[in-house]
Amino acid sequence: MGRAHNFNAGPSALPLEVLRRAQAELIDYQGTGMSVMELSHRSETYEAIHRSAQDRLRRLLGVPDNYRVLFLQGGASLQFAMLPMNYLSRDAAAAYVLTGSWSEKAAQEARRFGRVQLDSQAKEDGYKTIPEMLDGEALAGASYVHITSNNTIYGTQWHAFPTTQIPLVADMSSDIMSHEVDVEQFHMIYAGAQKNLGPSGVTVVIVRDEWLQQANQDIPTMLQYGVHAKADSLYNTPPTFAIYLMDLVLEWIEEQGGLTAIASRNAEKSGLIYSVIDEYPDLFDGHAAKSARSHMNVTFRLPSDEQSKEFLAQAKALGFVGVKGHRSVGGCRVSLYNAVPVESAARFAEFMRDYARKSR
Amino acid sequence: MGRAHNFNAGPSALPLEVLRRAQAELIDYQGTGMSVMELSHRSETYEAIHRSAQDRLRRLLGVPDNYRVLFLQGGASLQFAMLPMNYLSRDAAAAYVLTGSWSEKAAQEARRFGRVQLDSQAKEDGYKTIPEMLDGEALAGASYVHITSNNTIYGTQWHAFPTTQIPLVADMSSDIMSHEVDVEQFHMIYAGAQKNLGPSGVTVVIVRDEWLQQANQDIPTMLQYGVHAKADSLYNTPPTFAIYLMDLVLEWIEEQGGLTAIASRNAEKSGLIYSVIDEYPDLFDGHAAKSARSHMNVTFRLPSDEQSKEFLAQAKALGFVGVKGHRSVGGCRVSLYNAVPVESAARFAEFMRDYARKSR
Repeated sequence: MGRAHNFNAGPSALPLEVLRRAQAELIDYQGTGMSVMELSHRSETYEAIHRSAQDRLRRLLGVPDNYRVLFLQGGASLQFAMLPMNYLSRDAAAAYVLTGSWSEKAAQEARRFGRVQLDSQAKEDGYKTIPEMLDGEALAGASYVHITSNNTIYGTQWHAFPTTQIPLVADMSSDIMSHEVDVEQFHMIYAGAQKNLGPSGVTVVIVRDEWLQQANQDIPTMLQYGVHAKADSLYNTPPTFAIYLMDLVLEWIEEQGGLTAIASRNAEKSGLIYSVIDEYPDLFDGHAAKSARSHMNVTFRLPSDEQSKEFLAQAKALGFVGVKGHRSVGGCRVSLYNAVPVESAARFAEFMRDYARKSR
Repeated sequence: MGRAHNFNAGPSALPLEVLRRAQAELIDYQGTGMSVMELSHRSETYEAIHRSAQDRLRRLLGVPDNYRVLFLQGGASLQFAMLPMNYLSRDAAAAYVLTGSWSEKAAQEARRFGRVQLDSQAKEDGYKTIPEMLDGEALAGASYVHITSNNTIYGTQWHAFPTTQIPLVADMSSDIMSHEVDVEQFHMIYAGAQKNLGPSGVTVVIVRDEWLQQANQDIPTMLQYGVHAKADSLYNTPPTFAIYLMDLVLEWIEEQGGLTAIASRNAEKSGLIYSVIDEYPDLFDGHAAKSARSHMNVTFRLPSDEQSKEFLAQAKALGFVGVKGHRSVGGCRVSLYNAVPVESAARFAEFMRDYARKSR
């Protein structure tokens, strides 16, 4: 069988070229007689991979010299705890902007370590929007403000990041490397790799040097950003194969023309689906407000649960993978991360149109 | 070039059959049109892999029904913190048996959370031995006692585990699945995968049900054993590809005849090296006392640092990888994990003998 049309929300599609390269090198990496998985993490061969992944990530995102790039484990979920453990104290407050389920989880975890002030504007909207301005009350006296740049479950995305004097931290798990970002707007960016960067099992953290100096050190060693920064993410054995795959994915992004080219292709893909939603508004009810629509996850419902089910069954039968929406929103979700080809989006849009015509 | 003789201390050699299978399936796993890395962790296809790895691990190690098998991230280093966070409180004590650098690190981390009582018998011996009996003073009133079953840096290994009424916890990172173990002797066993189980990036925890009930819940969500047990290690996105590779490695162990066959082959491999050490005691100074010799890591020094260097240079030139000893012990270390073929050990023993004859 050929390649699936893979719309999984994560782990998700990887570029075919990356998989082919990984396959070719799997048993003997560059004449070493070993797989990348069999290399010591202290060997020169592995260290070159580690450095290459860091360098490519810095170049692609334009990470300034006064930021560190770390490769950790535990996904965004562990970052939900590490961030407040490092930067929130009992008698202080942090601001969390709620834009979906993941930001709620991040805020919930922070409550263990200090006061949490919520910006709930989007929540009051049923998570269809992204706030145009941050809520001043939520920000008052906060040590940092946390946002989720893209909301996989609701299909909304920040298209312009808020400006604030308070250290801004973004969970970019589901849209990092999908478009250009001004890193200097942030004190920290973190992201699980399994959407746009590689396989699951590695987490990227980009953090300002000066902020590293201010982190709490009275916490478990493995949860201190400073420990990992000092050891260049080799404090303990890193997930070497996942980092190698990330390096290949980043190389692929460079070959595609970098983030400008990638962003334009992502807009093209999501545009293909959104245009069908807009053509048939009585059949496809898009969850996100137009201004907040995500280029990564397109979410919509059909008029009834039965019709959503029928639509999903037809999509599955045609070989479209991962289209079922998250249970908290229902309906359908089409995830269009970097590695999903335009062809897959076009084929799905065609299927939606066919379905709409037959439903008349 | 052919396969390297890979004596890396970890990440380390994987079975060639496993790498070949992973290579063949890398782009299209079982006709899904997707790589394992591209599967949703909530899909039936991935869940079958997850369950298969758990089931094989249970069968091979004979894990009783009243134990849970978890797949976590962060390596043994994160377990050094998770264990005391879950099972040690401020006003209580835990006992740590020091048998090398990793047990010292584990004890050091526990100090953050409560009192630590040390069994230092092996340390006083320069880490050449394993205690024959536990130190009663160190055990007094302890919530648990922690041992490191194999010490990669010093090359010592427990050949019989201590019996005690206190919950026994073992870091088995460097010898899990290398021989049979009576799991019921332990309340918990944990192990990073990158020596005998698979690539780096996944950590196995085997824990008694009843002990799970007693864990502290006032700690970060991702560090609660109970959270991962309840979600069957799918609380957040697991390192799916590393778990898939672990499943393949466990299948390979089954094909080898299980742990009895593996243990006998490991004894044969280490025996090949130890016998040269015993033949030329003036040239090769084995670090471990004979009774404590590890089947996983053979450590020895030559009479001078210059001679060690010369020996290492020759070994490297002949294609033997990873033989340099850890800086804290110096000299040489030959790691002989499950996937290292007998042939590699035999070739290295031959090289040692040649070197010894020429040095006369």
